[in-house]
Amino acid sequence: MASPEERLAALNIELPAAAAPVANYVPVVQTGNLLVVSGQLPLVDGQLLITGKLGAEVSHQAGQACARACFINILAQVKAALGGDLTRVRRVVRLGGFMACTADFTDHAAVMNGASDLAGEVFEGEVGRHARSTVGVPSLPLNAPVEVEAMFEIA
Amino acid sequence: MASPEERLAALNIELPAAAAPVANYVPVVQTGNLLVVSGQLPLVDGQLLITGKLGAEVSHQAGQACARACFINILAQVKAALGGDLTRVRRVVRLGGFMACTADFTDHAAVMNGASDLAGEVFEGEVGRHARSTVGVPSLPLNAPVEVEAMFEIA
Amino acid sequence: MASPEERLAALNIELPAAAAPVANYVPVVQTGNLLVVSGQLPLVDGQLLITGKLGAEVSHQAGQACARACFINILAQVKAALGGDLTRVRRVVRLGGFMACTADFTDHAAVMNGASDLAGEVFEGEVGRHARSTVGVPSLPLNAPVEVEAMFEIA
Repeated sequence: MASPEERLAALNIELPAAAAPVANYVPVVQTGNLLVVSGQLPLVDGQLLITGKLGAEVSHQAGQACARACFINILAQVKAALGGDLTRVRRVVRLGGFMACTADFTDHAAVMNGASDLAGEVFEGEVGRHARSTVGVPSLPLNAPVEVEAMFEIA
Repeated sequence: MASPEERLAALNIELPAAAAPVANYVPVVQTGNLLVVSGQLPLVDGQLLITGKLGAEVSHQAGQACARACFINILAQVKAALGGDLTRVRRVVRLGGFMACTADFTDHAAVMNGASDLAGEVFEGEVGRHARSTVGVPSLPLNAPVEVEAMFEIA
Repeated sequence: MASPEERLAALNIELPAAAAPVANYVPVVQTGNLLVVSGQLPLVDGQLLITGKLGAEVSHQAGQACARACFINILAQVKAALGGDLTRVRRVVRLGGFMACTADFTDHAAVMNGASDLAGEVFEGEVGRHARSTVGVPSLPLNAPVEVEAMFEIA
């Protein structure tokens, strides 16, 4: 049984350094054995993968890539919060997906699978199976097309 | 004191079969004594009650019926997660309501009462009294007018 | 080390009376040592500070004042739930910010700092440092520009 770190390596995913906390607002808070992770944007090397809206200038595929990038940033934050050891994750409890989109966009679920599928690839069986809510929004910080927040249970 | 199941029967509500889990994304996750329930749409027999937006083609009353249908689907999922026994619910902790609506719609709270009122009818006293957040969104999966997510505390 | 109440006094903030519970929907639910706080609007003496949307008739500064007012109402609810004693707060776990805005608005994070900064001023060090998610919405109840929900850990 491969560890999350081995699965990430097999997927050729290198987690970025977790972004530093911003003053009064931090990327992860632990309460009991829950980690509450702040909404993450699809930033790669400090740049958004793409800006704009689903249903307009952002394609279905680009949206999925954004949801996946958000989840990679979530993993980076969780790994940092766990002292570098993702094997302490017992369950991805919940993902919340926000899609900046036009009023006639209806394909939120498939775009959000960019995050959910990666959760299933990185964590074995039940560990990666999460509850989720996916909704449209008119706009997101920095004109990002996707933001994903998360809750994890840890050992 | 009537059980939730007896109250549902008195309301002539028959819970549907809980929809099957979708691959990496599941309807309910238990963490400790919390159940986190994925956002539910107003699906009845696999069809949305209505599509479109509040403030436009979806009336106040149709919106309330949608919020109520979302909560019925939440109950179906919770009941399945509890091995068929809703008496194990100690508290409806939180409902999150998302209303697909026009920019000038302001009646979110009354529409969301379609879900909150049913929570109060099905669960005795404090058990059904929940925290909630209700917001507008430009669009939801499948062009649904309402999506409701939930958190429950169980025995 | 000043108590949260002393810090509020130093900031010249007098917490309002917590709004009474509304039937089936209540401002705060405790589950274990978590307090889940319903979405709060920027109501002061029963009136919204301002109505409308960020990116249109509501300025950046007015939006920040709204986020701050939402957090003051959250504090009032938490204080009431704790029998009047905010020193029982161990951690502001999470804030969720919803900004009613135009589709081209991108400054959600700075507006939400109106709430986050006050959390940092009222609670000492780590206690006030929270996870957060901030998203745009097309509209909010009563045409409010901002709604903030919260989760706290208590002793």
